[in-house]
Amino acid sequence: MAGNSFGTAFRITTFGESHGKGVGVIVDGVPPGVPLTEEDIQPEMDRRKPGQSDLTTPRKESDEVSIQSGTFEDKTTGTPLMMILHNTNTISSDYNDVLDKYRPGHADYTYHKKYGFRDWRGSGRASGRETAGRVAAGAVAKKILKDRGITITAYTKAAAGISCESYVPEQIEKNPMRACDPAAAEKMVKVIERLKEEGNSAGGIIECRINGVPAGLGEPVFDKLEADLGKGILSIGAVKGFEIGEGFGVASMFGTEHNDEMSAEGFVTNHAGGITGGISTGQEIIFRAAVKPTASISAPQKTVNMKGEEVDIVTEGRHDPIICPRIVPVMEAMAAIVLCDHLLRFEAQKSLQIS
Amino acid sequence: MAGNSFGTAFRITTFGESHGKGVGVIVDGVPPGVPLTEEDIQPEMDRRKPGQSDLTTPRKESDEVSIQSGTFEDKTTGTPLMMILHNTNTISSDYNDVLDKYRPGHADYTYHKKYGFRDWRGSGRASGRETAGRVAAGAVAKKILKDRGITITAYTKAAAGISCESYVPEQIEKNPMRACDPAAAEKMVKVIERLKEEGNSAGGIIECRINGVPAGLGEPVFDKLEADLGKGILSIGAVKGFEIGEGFGVASMFGTEHNDEMSAEGFVTNHAGGITGGISTGQEIIFRAAVKPTASISAPQKTVNMKGEEVDIVTEGRHDPIICPRIVPVMEAMAAIVLCDHLLRFEAQKSLQIS
Amino acid sequence: MAGNSFGTAFRITTFGESHGKGVGVIVDGVPPGVPLTEEDIQPEMDRRKPGQSDLTTPRKESDEVSIQSGTFEDKTTGTPLMMILHNTNTISSDYNDVLDKYRPGHADYTYHKKYGFRDWRGSGRASGRETAGRVAAGAVAKKILKDRGITITAYTKAAAGISCESYVPEQIEKNPMRACDPAAAEKMVKVIERLKEEGNSAGGIIECRINGVPAGLGEPVFDKLEADLGKGILSIGAVKGFEIGEGFGVASMFGTEHNDEMSAEGFVTNHAGGITGGISTGQEIIFRAAVKPTASISAPQKTVNMKGEEVDIVTEGRHDPIICPRIVPVMEAMAAIVLCDHLLRFEAQKSLQIS
Amino acid sequence: MAGNSFGTAFRITTFGESHGKGVGVIVDGVPPGVPLTEEDIQPEMDRRKPGQSDLTTPRKESDEVSIQSGTFEDKTTGTPLMMILHNTNTISSDYNDVLDKYRPGHADYTYHKKYGFRDWRGSGRASGRETAGRVAAGAVAKKILKDRGITITAYTKAAAGISCESYVPEQIEKNPMRACDPAAAEKMVKVIERLKEEGNSAGGIIECRINGVPAGLGEPVFDKLEADLGKGILSIGAVKGFEIGEGFGVASMFGTEHNDEMSAEGFVTNHAGGITGGISTGQEIIFRAAVKPTASISAPQKTVNMKGEEVDIVTEGRHDPIICPRIVPVMEAMAAIVLCDHLLRFEAQKSLQIS
Repeated sequence: MAGNSFGTAFRITTFGESHGKGVGVIVDGVPPGVPLTEEDIQPEMDRRKPGQSDLTTPRKESDEVSIQSGTFEDKTTGTPLMMILHNTNTISSDYNDVLDKYRPGHADYTYHKKYGFRDWRGSGRASGRETAGRVAAGAVAKKILKDRGITITAYTKAAAGISCESYVPEQIEKNPMRACDPAAAEKMVKVIERLKEEGNSAGGIIECRINGVPAGLGEPVFDKLEADLGKGILSIGAVKGFEIGEGFGVASMFGTEHNDEMSAEGFVTNHAGGITGGISTGQEIIFRAAVKPTASISAPQKTVNMKGEEVDIVTEGRHDPIICPRIVPVMEAMAAIVLCDHLLRFEAQKSLQIS
Repeated sequence: MAGNSFGTAFRITTFGESHGKGVGVIVDGVPPGVPLTEEDIQPEMDRRKPGQSDLTTPRKESDEVSIQSGTFEDKTTGTPLMMILHNTNTISSDYNDVLDKYRPGHADYTYHKKYGFRDWRGSGRASGRETAGRVAAGAVAKKILKDRGITITAYTKAAAGISCESYVPEQIEKNPMRACDPAAAEKMVKVIERLKEEGNSAGGIIECRINGVPAGLGEPVFDKLEADLGKGILSIGAVKGFEIGEGFGVASMFGTEHNDEMSAEGFVTNHAGGITGGISTGQEIIFRAAVKPTASISAPQKTVNMKGEEVDIVTEGRHDPIICPRIVPVMEAMAAIVLCDHLLRFEAQKSLQIS
Repeated sequence: MAGNSFGTAFRITTFGESHGKGVGVIVDGVPPGVPLTEEDIQPEMDRRKPGQSDLTTPRKESDEVSIQSGTFEDKTTGTPLMMILHNTNTISSDYNDVLDKYRPGHADYTYHKKYGFRDWRGSGRASGRETAGRVAAGAVAKKILKDRGITITAYTKAAAGISCESYVPEQIEKNPMRACDPAAAEKMVKVIERLKEEGNSAGGIIECRINGVPAGLGEPVFDKLEADLGKGILSIGAVKGFEIGEGFGVASMFGTEHNDEMSAEGFVTNHAGGITGGISTGQEIIFRAAVKPTASISAPQKTVNMKGEEVDIVTEGRHDPIICPRIVPVMEAMAAIVLCDHLLRFEAQKSLQIS
Repeated sequence: MAGNSFGTAFRITTFGESHGKGVGVIVDGVPPGVPLTEEDIQPEMDRRKPGQSDLTTPRKESDEVSIQSGTFEDKTTGTPLMMILHNTNTISSDYNDVLDKYRPGHADYTYHKKYGFRDWRGSGRASGRETAGRVAAGAVAKKILKDRGITITAYTKAAAGISCESYVPEQIEKNPMRACDPAAAEKMVKVIERLKEEGNSAGGIIECRINGVPAGLGEPVFDKLEADLGKGILSIGAVKGFEIGEGFGVASMFGTEHNDEMSAEGFVTNHAGGITGGISTGQEIIFRAAVKPTASISAPQKTVNMKGEEVDIVTEGRHDPIICPRIVPVMEAMAAIVLCDHLLRFEAQKSLQIS
């Protein structure tokens, strides 16, 4: 009902607020026997954490993950895996100035309308910090998938109006934009550094490729693989669009162009993006997400306070001028969770099939 | 697990195949006391049914809906509402020629990989006919929402490369494209009639506007209102993308442009599309979906058969050269189901709130 | 939310009322490839249907089950199985006399309090007729289980104060009480025939044995196998108690008596009833349920009407003086659904286990 | 799937093992605005914790509960409430002697069969320590219920063959058995102290009364209030039976005896135990549970080890000769969680009702 869980067979429930004691996740449905320690999780946490470059918020969080349950002698037991990250750097006073104002582009107003009051410290549950739990769970999913040859790679495809023109996967983690084209990345950085100085922010597009997925994953009606991926990705704050394969490009294509023909070697093209009728084709799955400009900007804006009076607002806090580089690992995590869930469901169905 | 249900508090489960005995739906969670007869449902069924114009498949289905349970003296009782539409026109022989071939753009190959075998008659469960149950359930949701002043309007925004340039809501149901711009509709019809003659098909974009939604609907983390809308829409066959508000346009916007400022009269702009942080703002909700060209085309294509041999395929059947006009009511139905579900959840939370 | 579904991986949703158009069920999660026709289901329906003997209501229902979806060429396809039984004998006028009175022992009063009004015809959804859908779904589950050597047998263990003293399984279906001891059955029949003449009714105990279950089914915490069995059985109207193994007898046992020791040949005793820590031991699972006397009796009783006025009531209708014989197949059905669900979940977990 | 969650609208997920870092719970669906601090929870934890009397295990755990998320300024925010209790006294070496032996009456064998290996330290997840999370969540539910005048009282009704003959509620918390009859309690203590010396254990019956429940709670089919209570109670380790109202006594009652008649003042009797047709009647809800003798006894028993060899076993550890007094608060907690869940669902339904 309250929507803090995601997944069916591999199911995560996140908890925690930006400025509370910590954030974390319970993963239920982890198969027993998977070798797992904090060292498997921490590298993903580090990719998400603040303070990685000039383009990310200077808030410093060590983001050290601790496994509290679900493993024994460094293997999963099949019982719930609880992982927590304690908050260490929560300067609530940063928010004193905005506590009675609705920040434009933020969930302040809607939370107030929903709950009747709100945790004004760093957005509470609406903070990007909630995604730490997702990334921890995603690291577990990734490990299970990797064992079956399934890998997931996300990267910035476009940002601040600049698009990548090449795909150089080994360069992704080497530039602060996590862009797939190092030349485009350089240009992006320049524009965004300027925006940062102006107290402004930029949006972008993230693309994700999943390789090694066998044909047959996904359910035919509501839990289509693309519908579950779509929900997972759209549940990440700041995401305003999701498309798979040709995506919105299909609007000006013909059936003769879009249909993927087959030869004895398999599919000839992949306009569908690796999923047809909700079920994986065995090809690369490729999708994109639109990420809005960070709402927290220091340029002055007009808003109202809780009494409904018009006021000016300047969001001081510590924020990212573009959120794409830090959303990249979150997107991979959500994709991994969806894939792992459908893998479990596929295996369950297979195991009972009478042939 | 098998994914034939959708929704949490207002929950639907569809059943039935294109060429079986019938299709239908169970709706669980309908509040008691809602006046309801088949006459409330049938008009929506008629908007979805085949044979409405030259642009839709000539397959004739009366699509008469029958309420089998859940009402008493023309009111809902709070027990499960079962609605069924019997299949009356199922010419399986239409499919004799393709029964061992994988039709490009169809789910034939993926179903085979998933289930080990498949119902080759008219795509079975992957058929658009499955959506009849969704539309019936959506009609119930619409009625509940209308009672609270919430209305939903979808329409073709672009098709075959032609975009609407005006928004004339009263013209939508008056042209066979269900486009919001009658002049664009005329052009679309001309292009698509030509494509039909060539045995080809076209894609398009559908836009949906929801008015009268109070602020506060949606859950903050995984069940964000836009995530549930996204899943509902992406679970409709042929949909390859979903975006809300500025959608993919955010990629080249700045924070200063995208943030919706507030004045004493409320929000000044609506770039967010009526949802911020997963929760409705009280503004119009506006989203778009990309619809791929109909996969069934009579132009010859290359594929393989179940033995893996390369073969030519011509899909004779009876198909739509563009599916947008018939997806419009399905999209409204899914949007209505999501809104009704979140309305119930919102009311539940409110009812227990201690203030 | 509204609680008309049961099960996780093998999930049923029932619909329909006693005096509406029909009753039925959707089963989601049926593995593909199971040979299945109405002939597999009908025998179970016949065991549940009214009019089998002098001890059951004379209401005549052919109870012919029809599979409406989910099979193709007499095999399951993995898509939702919808089965329906049309109501053919619904004499609502039987209920004219009671329509504004709350029948003692019935759900009339509670439904009214819950929904604000009620379908007074034959109890609507609270009628035993709702269980027809469960029995149809149970027949499918039984078939899947039988294929793996798992069988389920329920029978009347005690009724009207008379207990069975022997266990003769082949006699169960040969006496109208479905009792496991033919001598006790004869005595029960005599007492109940007398009660019937007096317009009275009797209660009883049903016992159920499940054989062939492998060790390892069930989940360790909330979804313990006995907890899910308990819920399934307690969700059958008229059931007021559930116990497994020694059941309430444990209250006067010592640990040294109750603990089941093991030898090289396996467990020496089975006080636990085949489940320990929520998980099957591989032994026979044995449980019992308490069934209250049929609430509908023709002896005059005191009650109030909807205005709160004290009135006398005589329930004419057509009712069973004891419901045990007809609950036996319902209990088997619920047990089969729980076992099939946990079998699927067990296989799912096994399939992903890394060893 | 893995069954570590319970409830629908008020939903708990527990985590943690007996000898890991800690145990705890996430509660999702807590209404916002409930005043809540650790001081509301701790008294319930103290009622469950070990070492309260000579009849409980001498394992010392401070069982200090810490709220990690979901509150702000000592009020719930409507976001997930995470509560944790760190394990402080985990002497794994206690288990060295049994680590390769299956303890009779324990889940050692079944866990091994299910998962392929097991956490042998203090039963891992099968330990009674898992219930700490339930008690914490139950304390929250109790607080919400109390605000609406709903109170829950459980107590030992019978133990070691001795039954209570009076009901003196104010004496329950004053005797180490938590029995409702102080004279019976004294006798129970004597017998159990002797059993303790002999390395043996005893079973018992716990009764629970819920007062102040309005009529109308519960769902009519699978989620009957007694079915959900039954599942909740049967999911507590050591519980082998559940009965409501007259329970198994109904087997020798007549309809004329069992039916609860009504007068202008309301129900005349309460044989049903406060629930009819799955829905609360507004009367006291009364149910009982059978609790098996503690499986861990120090008297020597016969079993096998993991190699299948016959061995003797003596469970040294630190255990309770009877678990009833410590299960009393757990049973109240599970009852509170079920009631709170159905209260939320009832309110949700009411809020949308059209009248």
